[in-house]
Amino acid sequence: MSTVLSRRDLDFLLFDWLGADDLVERARYAEHSHETFEAVLDLAETIATERFAPINRTLDLHEPIVGPDGKVVLPDGLAEALAVYRDSGMPSAVFPEELGGMQLPYLVAQGAFVFFQAASAAAASYPFLSAGNANLLVAHGSPEQIDRYARPVIEGRWFGTMCLSEPHAGSSLGDITTRAVRQEDGTYRLFGTKMWISGGDHELTENIVHLVLAKVEGAPPGVKGISLFIVPKFVVEDDGSIGERNDVALVGLNHKMGWRGTTNTLLNFGEGFATPGGARGAIGHLVGEEGQGLAQMFHMMNEARIDVGLGAVALGYTGYLHALQYAKERTQGRLAGQKDPSLPMVPIVEHADVRRMLLAQKSYVEGGLGLVLYCSRLVDEQETAPDEATRARAHRLLEVLTPIAKSWPSQWCLAANDLAIQVHGGSGYTRDYPVEQFYRDNRLNPIHEGTHGIQSLDLLGRKVVLDGGAWFAELVSTMRDTVERAAQRQELAQFAAEVGARVDRLVEVTRTLWADGDPAVALANSAVYLEATGHVVIAWVWLEQLLAVGDRTGEFFDGKRAAARYFRVFELPKVDAQFDLLASLDRTVLEVDPAVL
Amino acid sequence: MSTVLSRRDLDFLLFDWLGADDLVERARYAEHSHETFEAVLDLAETIATERFAPINRTLDLHEPIVGPDGKVVLPDGLAEALAVYRDSGMPSAVFPEELGGMQLPYLVAQGAFVFFQAASAAAASYPFLSAGNANLLVAHGSPEQIDRYARPVIEGRWFGTMCLSEPHAGSSLGDITTRAVRQEDGTYRLFGTKMWISGGDHELTENIVHLVLAKVEGAPPGVKGISLFIVPKFVVEDDGSIGERNDVALVGLNHKMGWRGTTNTLLNFGEGFATPGGARGAIGHLVGEEGQGLAQMFHMMNEARIDVGLGAVALGYTGYLHALQYAKERTQGRLAGQKDPSLPMVPIVEHADVRRMLLAQKSYVEGGLGLVLYCSRLVDEQETAPDEATRARAHRLLEVLTPIAKSWPSQWCLAANDLAIQVHGGSGYTRDYPVEQFYRDNRLNPIHEGTHGIQSLDLLGRKVVLDGGAWFAELVSTMRDTVERAAQRQELAQFAAEVGARVDRLVEVTRTLWADGDPAVALANSAVYLEATGHVVIAWVWLEQLLAVGDRTGEFFDGKRAAARYFRVFELPKVDAQFDLLASLDRTVLEVDPAVL
Repeated sequence: MSTVLSRRDLDFLLFDWLGADDLVERARYAEHSHETFEAVLDLAETIATERFAPINRTLDLHEPIVGPDGKVVLPDGLAEALAVYRDSGMPSAVFPEELGGMQLPYLVAQGAFVFFQAASAAAASYPFLSAGNANLLVAHGSPEQIDRYARPVIEGRWFGTMCLSEPHAGSSLGDITTRAVRQEDGTYRLFGTKMWISGGDHELTENIVHLVLAKVEGAPPGVKGISLFIVPKFVVEDDGSIGERNDVALVGLNHKMGWRGTTNTLLNFGEGFATPGGARGAIGHLVGEEGQGLAQMFHMMNEARIDVGLGAVALGYTGYLHALQYAKERTQGRLAGQKDPSLPMVPIVEHADVRRMLLAQKSYVEGGLGLVLYCSRLVDEQETAPDEATRARAHRLLEVLTPIAKSWPSQWCLAANDLAIQVHGGSGYTRDYPVEQFYRDNRLNPIHEGTHGIQSLDLLGRKVVLDGGAWFAELVSTMRDTVERAAQRQELAQFAAEVGARVDRLVEVTRTLWADGDPAVALANSAVYLEATGHVVIAWVWLEQLLAVGDRTGEFFDGKRAAARYFRVFELPKVDAQFDLLASLDRTVLEVDPAVL
Repeated sequence: MSTVLSRRDLDFLLFDWLGADDLVERARYAEHSHETFEAVLDLAETIATERFAPINRTLDLHEPIVGPDGKVVLPDGLAEALAVYRDSGMPSAVFPEELGGMQLPYLVAQGAFVFFQAASAAAASYPFLSAGNANLLVAHGSPEQIDRYARPVIEGRWFGTMCLSEPHAGSSLGDITTRAVRQEDGTYRLFGTKMWISGGDHELTENIVHLVLAKVEGAPPGVKGISLFIVPKFVVEDDGSIGERNDVALVGLNHKMGWRGTTNTLLNFGEGFATPGGARGAIGHLVGEEGQGLAQMFHMMNEARIDVGLGAVALGYTGYLHALQYAKERTQGRLAGQKDPSLPMVPIVEHADVRRMLLAQKSYVEGGLGLVLYCSRLVDEQETAPDEATRARAHRLLEVLTPIAKSWPSQWCLAANDLAIQVHGGSGYTRDYPVEQFYRDNRLNPIHEGTHGIQSLDLLGRKVVLDGGAWFAELVSTMRDTVERAAQRQELAQFAAEVGARVDRLVEVTRTLWADGDPAVALANSAVYLEATGHVVIAWVWLEQLLAVGDRTGEFFDGKRAAARYFRVFELPKVDAQFDLLASLDRTVLEVDPAVL
């Protein structure tokens, strides 16, 4: 049994449930077939298992350091693993053939990428960020920019970053102060400091393409003044060759609780930025038009948020598989009622509470994986569905689901990692077993790419109200459709009714929250709203999975039923208290005076 | 504002609520006064803040290593901090005057010790384990054993350990295989391997007193065959001087996710234990009679479990104070509705979701501290209450509350640490801020001294049914008494009614669970029972605290009201779904076939 990921489950979700094979009927994917999809998954599983998983602990133990020459030193094995990844063609998975890409559906590419995230979150983050970077340039860059900066990233020769946050501005991007000064040759010079830049400096690739948010001098305050710039670590000459070093300096490395194999940096753009008159500044190239930076970045951010959800699932999933293996091998104690101490000890999976912890993990990680892959299919739908109505519908649904796909796995697959430690007992708390690292690595996910709180404001403050609630209505009708279909099957009728009742409640509570239109009151408990909605959505995903299971029996399908039952019985009822709280328009957090805290 | 602990809150709980001053009326504490109690708390706060807190990160960064001479090397500062602790007399806090002790009430000693646990969990664990060790010997050792082995520990000159687990037997102590061979001189020779021994080897003190569970040859199988032995690292001569090295060998150090400053060891007793005929064996001295080992150890274990709860609270509490300070200093974004980007950013405590996270932490840590200190007062009651009925009542109540006092803070004050990280955002995930260490350190608490699952079996499988349910009835009547008193106060009537309803439900559900007497069914969801009961108990603790607040106003008392309100509105309703699940006698975890996981 693989402890990285369950290929069986992945195949079920991709092909049995989400109909990945149907996509080959679309012109964009006509060159593909079930066999090519499986071949990509095979390749990903092999490389992840053989190259990424073995170095995961090494990356944790040997954090990047800055060598005496000022260069970042990374532990052995990482460059080699990433070279194998590059040579496999994986970096080009979703890109079009004319850019040298595999032109895979996003759904299948995600199914492949999750292996890498499960095998080593830190190693996978270099290609993860690079793909988002290239994707953004392909969407918004000029043909010349795509050729010069995106192609090498798609080929896996260079890596890319996203430079958004600054030391004083993380969630509040409108307050960034990095300045861009227009030059006569059409380029810009950037001056400022960027914080939390993953992959911000290293020697893994010969160049790094930074995508940097900055404000052109004279731009309006707030988010409207933000523009997006390409700032390569080394200037790229007209023939694509590497030129001189750009004015981007590594100030320091951040030291995190987990995710230690990813260099995370503080970067200065324009070394002398305090006295810009005397400094050269970092040469930057505007992407699109001035003032469009945040909108462009959100094109990347939306997919990045789904990918964060996928990464959270991946860590939860591999943790679950490790805990399951341990529970079947480790013996301890006897069953309740077995009083004879001379009987042999039983594998701990025989203890009810251990099974509870395993079922909980299974319900979280398989539910979470289902949601994220469902969203990935929506990305394909919004881009390649044959008719405009379907594309528009997919877009609305995806927008509403994105904050949930990011936050739910970040919360509950971290909870799965917590349970994986608990199943291991004292061993799980040591660095001799991998589950403690998964737990530390996964703790990042509720923070980056928009915190849990930010996601909750995005859902309740934006997505739910946009377009007169039409986006939210799309989610509701989609869930109700599933409930109706499930209600037709006797063995699913009860679960369907329970999900249906919570969907009704969600609609009602959402209306109550916005009844008087006061955002302070509506949003006071937005995190509770996000969490309750997330649980309803995952229950719906489980109902969908059971519909895909149908009448089939056997260990795999019975396992789906068991995990769904766990979620139905142990998890879904939690939302009732949350909805009650929300419906009461409770003002506890709104009214508390910070002075009394 | 101290970020270690709130002295104001501690004084409120000890003196306003739990009436610590009343204890001086008892003969045992007649030498004490409010002033001596306060002096001890002052001393603890000062030493913890000035000596323990500053080395906490150092202990995390520089784990113990085994030097070339085979000796354990600990980071600078630890020995010095512990020497100051020793010289303060703290190790003797609860011990009687005739043993050189301060003869403090347990309640006050706990109030002092929590400062050390909050300042450095790892550093505090050396005296923590030593106090439990000496306490056990004072209770069960012979006068000669007390003089020879407990006195030096009480004086802080030696440290002590508890050697229970073995590599193959952690929770299942009946399965230990360490053997004790009777010698003609009345001593024993021990052969075996002990795992997870905190403080198992170091050079901090000139000797270490190990208390070791082992089975005398010919003893019955299971827990009845367990005896307890004193096994000093160095043999102690008749005059109390240090003799030759005993046959106890350090095999290796465990490397944990947190709590890194505490040496955690694998020890061999009798180096040649594989061929006992040729090995000397470790010289051990039987405590009490053969076969009493587990009962004796539980004397220590019960208090150790309360102390684990206290340690979990301490980490949650200091994390909360750090998060609060950060939230008041860090600025980010603007309030909902403030659209003008040129306005200055606000401290993040102004954001509703940040206040929610702070209130949650406050409700967990102040509720948890209340529970653990209440239990500490019960320890005093069961030992020194003037009449036998009160002592017996305290004993019953303490027994029922112990698994909750251990597990609830281990779960929810860890959750507080999780929220403390979240309040800090990306900074909280770095080792530049202390909250990530608190989170890692606290993750141990649901595991050691009996896992969460073990506590749930202890509560539902033992404590609730013992003596025909009389112990449990004690808790119920105590909570109902509080509800009745609170119902008399208009501002508390609603909360009282809500707690009262949950107490009723707890009684009813407990009856349902045991209705047909099948332990497999009753205990299938014991962890859910533990968690639901824990939340009801903490709600009751909050009601008690509000009664102690009375009509008083001002920031501190209004803060109590706000935290209690949070717990009432956001937390207590969670138990309804848990009770519903329990009442349904759900068989999901009971029935799932491990093969389908």
